[in-house]
Amino acid sequence: MDTVHFGVLTASDRASNGEYEDLSGPSIEEFLHLAIKNPFQINRKIVPDEQTTIESEIIELCNLGCSVIITTGGTGPAPRDVTPDATENVCERLLPGFGEQMRAISLRHVPTAVLSRQTAGIRGKSLILNLPGSPRSIRETIDEIWPAIPYCIDLIGGPYIETTEGVWSAWRPPHARRLIDE
Amino acid sequence: MDTVHFGVLTASDRASNGEYEDLSGPSIEEFLHLAIKNPFQINRKIVPDEQTTIESEIIELCNLGCSVIITTGGTGPAPRDVTPDATENVCERLLPGFGEQMRAISLRHVPTAVLSRQTAGIRGKSLILNLPGSPRSIRETIDEIWPAIPYCIDLIGGPYIETTEGVWSAWRPPHARRLIDE
Amino acid sequence: MDTVHFGVLTASDRASNGEYEDLSGPSIEEFLHLAIKNPFQINRKIVPDEQTTIESEIIELCNLGCSVIITTGGTGPAPRDVTPDATENVCERLLPGFGEQMRAISLRHVPTAVLSRQTAGIRGKSLILNLPGSPRSIRETIDEIWPAIPYCIDLIGGPYIETTEGVWSAWRPPHARRLIDE
Repeated sequence: MDTVHFGVLTASDRASNGEYEDLSGPSIEEFLHLAIKNPFQINRKIVPDEQTTIESEIIELCNLGCSVIITTGGTGPAPRDVTPDATENVCERLLPGFGEQMRAISLRHVPTAVLSRQTAGIRGKSLILNLPGSPRSIRETIDEIWPAIPYCIDLIGGPYIETTEGVWSAWRPPHARRLIDE
Repeated sequence: MDTVHFGVLTASDRASNGEYEDLSGPSIEEFLHLAIKNPFQINRKIVPDEQTTIESEIIELCNLGCSVIITTGGTGPAPRDVTPDATENVCERLLPGFGEQMRAISLRHVPTAVLSRQTAGIRGKSLILNLPGSPRSIRETIDEIWPAIPYCIDLIGGPYIETTEGVWSAWRPPHARRLIDE
Repeated sequence: MDTVHFGVLTASDRASNGEYEDLSGPSIEEFLHLAIKNPFQINRKIVPDEQTTIESEIIELCNLGCSVIITTGGTGPAPRDVTPDATENVCERLLPGFGEQMRAISLRHVPTAVLSRQTAGIRGKSLILNLPGSPRSIRETIDEIWPAIPYCIDLIGGPYIETTEGVWSAWRPPHARRLIDE
């Protein structure tokens, strides 16, 4: 199985200056340990809500070969929320379906999900994905969108990601399936 | 309770030249009277479907201190429909979830809701929100999205909006709730 | 009844070089024969996944008077998928509801529908609409969105399109209905 590199970036003024503990990044790490069968490495970043910092850290994660870069935090309408803006700036193309679907999922739980500006896009062979800031809403959304991500990475020329059976099982069209682990 | 300023802008060639009566603006006013507990003032505008006029009137409503500016009309695909274009031009950041959710709501009623280009966004401390043009579809959408709006205004530094109990009750995360009126 | 001109453009490297047969374009043609009562003509194009080629072919179809130009293929995240980019470049205004609704429809069938970047927009008196690439997903989406399209063409100054009764029946607000064929 291919080794996969992931990036996990927490955007939060208070987590980055130590005012409180980052629970969101670890919640994403925990998800990856549950869902991925490949050997993998995670690059973690905790940065303040500064657009240029977020942009340069995402670019660095791309340059390190991360196939999926997951951000958490900074997706709301407040002036310091700039993660989607940074994401759009570094992506070569956007995938609007992810923002739409994640807002629709979160709307089942809270009406203020409509305020989220989260997006996703591609830079080179990396998919960059904005998740919400709270551990609970992270899992509500990533659990449901994850099945689409391995095939996305196939299409942009990345490693073949294999998933554990269950809610996170990768979906691929028949012609794109490999028999590696059967 | 804080006093809240609202802007209500009707974009319609025929309503602005007196060819017919504007029923959409009054329907939004009526909604605000039902939903809001704070003391409030409404600034009303009726303008033709001219993009530069709509832009300058929205900017004026922002400068007057309106926390929420609700437009009605001009969101379709016809050449004279320019309200979303004016809105995008004056906003510093867009909130794509509102357009998505309002189209999804209206699609339950008519298939042509897919044609709406309505959007929302933020300029300074003002939320600008495009609603459809007909009084019936105004209420179908605003009744359902309203619970998210008071917390949005909190996040952009505006007044604390309190709502009447019922379908329009504001939703806020626990840390953002005040006990003003309890 | 007005004569209607349609454009059907297949974007596919392999279909355009003869490596395999284009089944998607014919599936759209078949749909139009089922759904449309007007006399009509279809202009067919099969082109490689080259953005500038797709753009110039769409423009040519607009200049030929096509009221609806339906593309198929090239809407995913792979580097050679450029149909939505070409569409955005040639449109004067976008209709984001179509991409949202078509992704939501396809998500009922496959989780990777979130990866689609399909969009729609208007150039002059032409509606340009990106459909997915496979015949099955073409019909899943077009069957459901079609009822909105005749009224869209009315609004941009095109011919009055009449539809056969059934799942594809055009929806128009009462004031926009004609009694031509009753």
